[in-house]
Amino acid sequence: MANKSCIIRLSRYRNALMRLKALNFVKVFSENLADAARVTAAQVRKDFSLFGISGNRRGGYLVEELLEQINRVLGKDKLQKFIVVGVGNIGRALLNYPGFKKNEIELVAGFDIDASKHNREAEVPIFLLEELNDFVKDNGIKFGIISVPDFAAQQILELMIQTGIRGILNFAPICLKEPEDCVIRNLNFETELENIIYFTNVTEKTEVR
Amino acid sequence: MANKSCIIRLSRYRNALMRLKALNFVKVFSENLADAARVTAAQVRKDFSLFGISGNRRGGYLVEELLEQINRVLGKDKLQKFIVVGVGNIGRALLNYPGFKKNEIELVAGFDIDASKHNREAEVPIFLLEELNDFVKDNGIKFGIISVPDFAAQQILELMIQTGIRGILNFAPICLKEPEDCVIRNLNFETELENIIYFTNVTEKTEVR
Repeated sequence: MANKSCIIRLSRYRNALMRLKALNFVKVFSENLADAARVTAAQVRKDFSLFGISGNRRGGYLVEELLEQINRVLGKDKLQKFIVVGVGNIGRALLNYPGFKKNEIELVAGFDIDASKHNREAEVPIFLLEELNDFVKDNGIKFGIISVPDFAAQQILELMIQTGIRGILNFAPICLKEPEDCVIRNLNFETELENIIYFTNVTEKTEVR
Repeated sequence: MANKSCIIRLSRYRNALMRLKALNFVKVFSENLADAARVTAAQVRKDFSLFGISGNRRGGYLVEELLEQINRVLGKDKLQKFIVVGVGNIGRALLNYPGFKKNEIELVAGFDIDASKHNREAEVPIFLLEELNDFVKDNGIKFGIISVPDFAAQQILELMIQTGIRGILNFAPICLKEPEDCVIRNLNFETELENIIYFTNVTEKTEVR
């Protein structure tokens, strides 16, 4: 069974492969992908074997074939649509993030309780929160992003789940509980920075000794 | 030795403690923190014992004391200053993020090569990239955030390290290599979404069976 780290590595291999493809590379070796993803070549081969991704260790992998196989695993063989609830600074930055669309991820709409943020004419339209349910059902959306303040996050989570959303990335600085049949990833900027502060300080202390 | 997950949990306990303190709680039990951080109470006690954080299992912990002890571990007993290189959508959202300052993290300045983004008068000033070195050295900054496009990220990393920055959060969608005496955390939005897509699809398939 794949774990989170393994899927993160697959994403990184894929990222590297896309770049190599753009450079007209036809073949790639596990050592190349290892360098790009900052892991060992043995780890690359182990990850591939877990998903039945085949290649020739000596002869390398065909970039095109490998990309197709990884895309299938990551569900990137078709467009995956996300909606964003909370169009503040973070929500807006995500809606304008240029990296998603070329990679079969599309942020299709934003929702906010603040009527001044609505814009049905924008490239990615912003709707009223009351329109979320119909939009998600009409468009068969499975994925959502929460970027509302902490006090509103739990309520938005429940609302999203009622509409049928099953995978959620949460930017609100509160740890949301994962309901049984849903996937939630809590991403807290402050926690990320605290992690860096702690490990940088530890590294400095170790050097002094 | 603490690992990344452990520090993430400490951040979460701290987050919960701040909220409890605001509600005038004096005491808290490991079970309370476990609920808030979505872990077991045994895990909470194990984490605390790893850092020599003491309390009375039956009598609970004093919120104020516990906060102080966690703050010391996380380096939050003093203000930690970050600079941001790349003031695009993500960089700007971070500079405007309200959650940091109250938690002893301050984003003190932004840097960008685009002169049209400069603003020395803003609450958080935006400077020319050429000013980075002097600013970091004059202000003794140890931490930085990279939010530039992927092709510029490696160069910005090297520049940051030359100035003396030792802890970096990277939002550019490329996996930067961690130099020996530095700490780098690569945070890729696309990878986060791919993770959610994968595990949501796996969960759905499991249910069908």
